[in-house]
Amino acid sequence: MKIALLGAGNVATHLSKALIKKGHPVIQVWSNTRQNAVDLALAIGADSIASVLDLSLDAELVIIAVKDDAIEEVAKQIPATSKAIVVHTSGSTAMAVLRGRTHYGVLYPLQTFSKAVDVDFDDVPLFLEASDPNTEIKLSELASQLSARVQLADSAQRLILHVAAVFACNFTNHFYSIGEHLLKQQNLDFNLLRPLIAETAEKALKYAPSSVQTGPAVRLDVQTMNKHLEALTGHPDLQELYRSVSQNIVKNC
Amino acid sequence: MKIALLGAGNVATHLSKALIKKGHPVIQVWSNTRQNAVDLALAIGADSIASVLDLSLDAELVIIAVKDDAIEEVAKQIPATSKAIVVHTSGSTAMAVLRGRTHYGVLYPLQTFSKAVDVDFDDVPLFLEASDPNTEIKLSELASQLSARVQLADSAQRLILHVAAVFACNFTNHFYSIGEHLLKQQNLDFNLLRPLIAETAEKALKYAPSSVQTGPAVRLDVQTMNKHLEALTGHPDLQELYRSVSQNIVKNC
Repeated sequence: MKIALLGAGNVATHLSKALIKKGHPVIQVWSNTRQNAVDLALAIGADSIASVLDLSLDAELVIIAVKDDAIEEVAKQIPATSKAIVVHTSGSTAMAVLRGRTHYGVLYPLQTFSKAVDVDFDDVPLFLEASDPNTEIKLSELASQLSARVQLADSAQRLILHVAAVFACNFTNHFYSIGEHLLKQQNLDFNLLRPLIAETAEKALKYAPSSVQTGPAVRLDVQTMNKHLEALTGHPDLQELYRSVSQNIVKNC
Repeated sequence: MKIALLGAGNVATHLSKALIKKGHPVIQVWSNTRQNAVDLALAIGADSIASVLDLSLDAELVIIAVKDDAIEEVAKQIPATSKAIVVHTSGSTAMAVLRGRTHYGVLYPLQTFSKAVDVDFDDVPLFLEASDPNTEIKLSELASQLSARVQLADSAQRLILHVAAVFACNFTNHFYSIGEHLLKQQNLDFNLLRPLIAETAEKALKYAPSSVQTGPAVRLDVQTMNKHLEALTGHPDLQELYRSVSQNIVKNC
């Protein structure tokens, strides 16, 4: 499938590299930030285009990987003459924003992407939604070449997957940052926390997290929780977070 | 060093196995729950004792690994005739709770322990505190045999380390559980989240977490956050958590 890419951010970068690896030519790249399109196009051997209106009629698949709130607007600029299937890659955006097109769908990779960090797409769960059975078959074939974990998900399921990912990834990383910050204030190296971070994730890969919860909250160890809150004097926002999360653990244990 | 162990929980179990591996005989085990002492003593070839008063005068080191709020009380029951160094293993308990003894200290392993999961002690950061220079030397020698990451930390530093660990481990695991729970409600397999969990931890092992934060909050993507809050209708406690953590991310970005 000849592919055009609208967007040149983290998802666009990783997805385009995975597509090319599997033999799908990415022929054009557009980005709202011209230079990003030029850079990515150079990196993957595609043409960069200055406007969505310049989209080639050769493109069989157009992947929109831009900020969620720009998807609908970008989709509207795709020339009506294009016969391409149009997909977006967003967890939180309903497929319906593309309903102006004939054939459309969603290809949502459930992974965290940073430009500097390589990702093995084979392991990335890919969630599919399509406007019609033929499109579903085509997207399914493509997705199966990219990843061993392809699954259908409607827009409601995808939204919940995204929320779950925010808790398990974004919020989790923020709590690593809080640890980093607390240690720095005591002149302690963040390396000291790394074995614990690795072990905590390792456990979650083998066991149901709800079955291996540890710490003062699940032990209902009020004395220790109060010591921790006292240690956080001077960080009222962290005290509040500590209380909220601990209460939620207690409620669910 | 001949060692007696007061406590037979997760920390006591893993610590005693690591000590024995390095050639330090654990001669006695006591626990508030008699059966736990018997089980651990059998597993490691020690005697179980029914009362702390039965502590052998041969013990050169007594390790108290009981619930934080029981440490002081257990320490008081150690016979005055014992010449052993007495240490506890708690992150949140000041060394001062042991000040009734002549030589005492703290040996705090910064790791999460579950009975079923093996832990390689070589990688576990061990934090030391001692009542006097001689005790510090002895504990330092022992700790260095157990782990390649031994460091001095006073009671205030240890408390902050523990708080940081609660955020980076206990709270993080709870957020994995929330993911597990949300997916289950949509009949989705928790396996779908595992690559993301692994990747998020991997990143934190290589980069400063504060430098690789992703997600709607750090992008100030209010539209997506509102969609997520709407998706959590019916989970007011999760909505509240989502708001608290997101606000904290926004504040720090």
